[in-house]
Amino acid sequence: MKVADVSYRSVWRDGDSIGIVDQTRLPHEFVTRRLSTGEAVAHAITAMQVRGAPLIGAVAAYGLALVLSRNGSDPALSAGIDLLLNARPTAVNLRWSLTRMLEHLKPLDPTLRADAAWDEAGRIADEDIELNQSIGRHGLALIRDLAKDKSSVNVLTHCNAGWLATVDYGTALAPIYLAHDEGIPVHVWVDETRPRNQGLLTAWELASHGVPHTLVTDNAGGHLMQRGKVDIVIVGADRVTSSGDVCNKIGTYLKALAARANQVPFFAAVPSPTIDWTITDPLEEIPIEERSADEVLFVRGIADDNQSTRVALASEGTNAANPAFDITPAELVTGIITEVGIVPATREGLAPLSARATLQ
Amino acid sequence: MKVADVSYRSVWRDGDSIGIVDQTRLPHEFVTRRLSTGEAVAHAITAMQVRGAPLIGAVAAYGLALVLSRNGSDPALSAGIDLLLNARPTAVNLRWSLTRMLEHLKPLDPTLRADAAWDEAGRIADEDIELNQSIGRHGLALIRDLAKDKSSVNVLTHCNAGWLATVDYGTALAPIYLAHDEGIPVHVWVDETRPRNQGLLTAWELASHGVPHTLVTDNAGGHLMQRGKVDIVIVGADRVTSSGDVCNKIGTYLKALAARANQVPFFAAVPSPTIDWTITDPLEEIPIEERSADEVLFVRGIADDNQSTRVALASEGTNAANPAFDITPAELVTGIITEVGIVPATREGLAPLSARATLQ
Repeated sequence: MKVADVSYRSVWRDGDSIGIVDQTRLPHEFVTRRLSTGEAVAHAITAMQVRGAPLIGAVAAYGLALVLSRNGSDPALSAGIDLLLNARPTAVNLRWSLTRMLEHLKPLDPTLRADAAWDEAGRIADEDIELNQSIGRHGLALIRDLAKDKSSVNVLTHCNAGWLATVDYGTALAPIYLAHDEGIPVHVWVDETRPRNQGLLTAWELASHGVPHTLVTDNAGGHLMQRGKVDIVIVGADRVTSSGDVCNKIGTYLKALAARANQVPFFAAVPSPTIDWTITDPLEEIPIEERSADEVLFVRGIADDNQSTRVALASEGTNAANPAFDITPAELVTGIITEVGIVPATREGLAPLSARATLQ
Repeated sequence: MKVADVSYRSVWRDGDSIGIVDQTRLPHEFVTRRLSTGEAVAHAITAMQVRGAPLIGAVAAYGLALVLSRNGSDPALSAGIDLLLNARPTAVNLRWSLTRMLEHLKPLDPTLRADAAWDEAGRIADEDIELNQSIGRHGLALIRDLAKDKSSVNVLTHCNAGWLATVDYGTALAPIYLAHDEGIPVHVWVDETRPRNQGLLTAWELASHGVPHTLVTDNAGGHLMQRGKVDIVIVGADRVTSSGDVCNKIGTYLKALAARANQVPFFAAVPSPTIDWTITDPLEEIPIEERSADEVLFVRGIADDNQSTRVALASEGTNAANPAFDITPAELVTGIITEVGIVPATREGLAPLSARATLQ
């Protein structure tokens, strides 16, 4: 997507290095970084300079290419994988991507591995973009339909499921970018998404690409829907169960409830690998990560002296809880926008996608 | 309520002055201020050192007593009223309280007005406390019932409807304070209530009085209810319609939807003067105040250097909207806790209270 009229991916090859957007500097500063070693890539992942499951997967693959460019030996390959896996041990896409790289590279002669790694990392990145473009095209049809009887289509989104979280286009934002690029007037209500305020990244992305949008607190969405100011809700998801329940950033469930109460369609946009075929009872089986209370108690922003500054919101010793995700039951989900089309959020609706899962 | 084991009201007479808690310093510092002139009181109201409709009404009444202590003449009386009314022209309770003071004082000999004003201001404060204690007793019965089969009752509240917003006890928090003081184990989930974070005041109040509580983002409530971690939701209200719709701080509606979806009882605690008998269609007739976008874009807290510091959250030029209230339809409201008892959120349920309105 565009930043100041220049097209970017969130990770790219740059000769013998890779380039990334340092997301810890956003939304206040657009800083790109050139990374030339596996260590630098591992650090970028750990420090959350790159974030978002699909992006982390692609960046790690490029990181392995950097490692192998110096030394293509078996020990270097496995040390590189260890280094990158440990950068964020719980990231599923990181493991998936490195496993794919290993399976592809292991059988090759060490002298061929560097080139093969660059190619495979490039394929992982390209495939992510293709998935997102496909999701975008299917979601675009929904927006195009809504645009028929409106001067502008109002989309509400939660968290950041944009190009910054993927290699390009994003998931929930892909239909919005495609609609905007096609000249369909679209306006996005952006939930700030406390406590980590990923909505600020969404607002920055949309602003950079020129998509009209308005930042709101997480409290505002119900009111907006009640007043007819939202035509469709599109969110990403960390996980979708085989029966269509959507596990996504905390607060998504509240928006789904409001959407249902006000007859606003509610969609999750996800690539099919995000569907978890093993879960039958999401409330029982999906553990909800309880993150640090400090994310609730402190916030970082730019002070008047232009310095990035952390401030305490609550009085010292305040007890806080910070569940990171919630489950939106399938019955509240109008449909799942996937790369193969929009399917009902039901076991039957999703079943055709399980064949794809076994292919991947 | 208590602060470090000392009982406080949020406004009190202190000889020829009044004392207030400077709420702009909370939750980080507990600072009381002595105000000796009408001008100082007007400034405290304008600067939001005191906030909350009932409290502002009581403080303004005391402010008029300060004015009349210096000069009880007709011109001083009307200048004092003008001064205080203009401190926050849109505050309904301010107008109500000053009108009551005027009607009481105007007929009196100027030499008698100062003493009469102190007495009447004291009555306004005492009556507010009595209302809140009555609300508290009725709400306490609900909590006591819930406590029968639980080790601890989990209450969720939004915004600050505590003693800081009234003269003492608060509205939504009154049942909680009474339950705690009676030894019923109660724990409060406190919504932070973006953008102005009044939940931090609620957390501070509860901490000061010793009531167990946990601060959460506004996004968390649906998840907590879904997991059975909330037994009852109690909120205050800026206005309740004659048919039981609740106009309260933005985000209340989302919690009411989640409460309904998860069979959690949802109550608004309000004194009967908060019922607006003139509204028939709340979505049409209640204008929702659109406040400054800066409340969304900036936040204030304590930086590492211990200074109160404002930081920008979003990138410069970000477009934000900030609706301040929303409407929770009566059908989502289990009941209204008033000073005369708990009534259904229906026209029939509330009707008996309209007789009180004509008496006040």
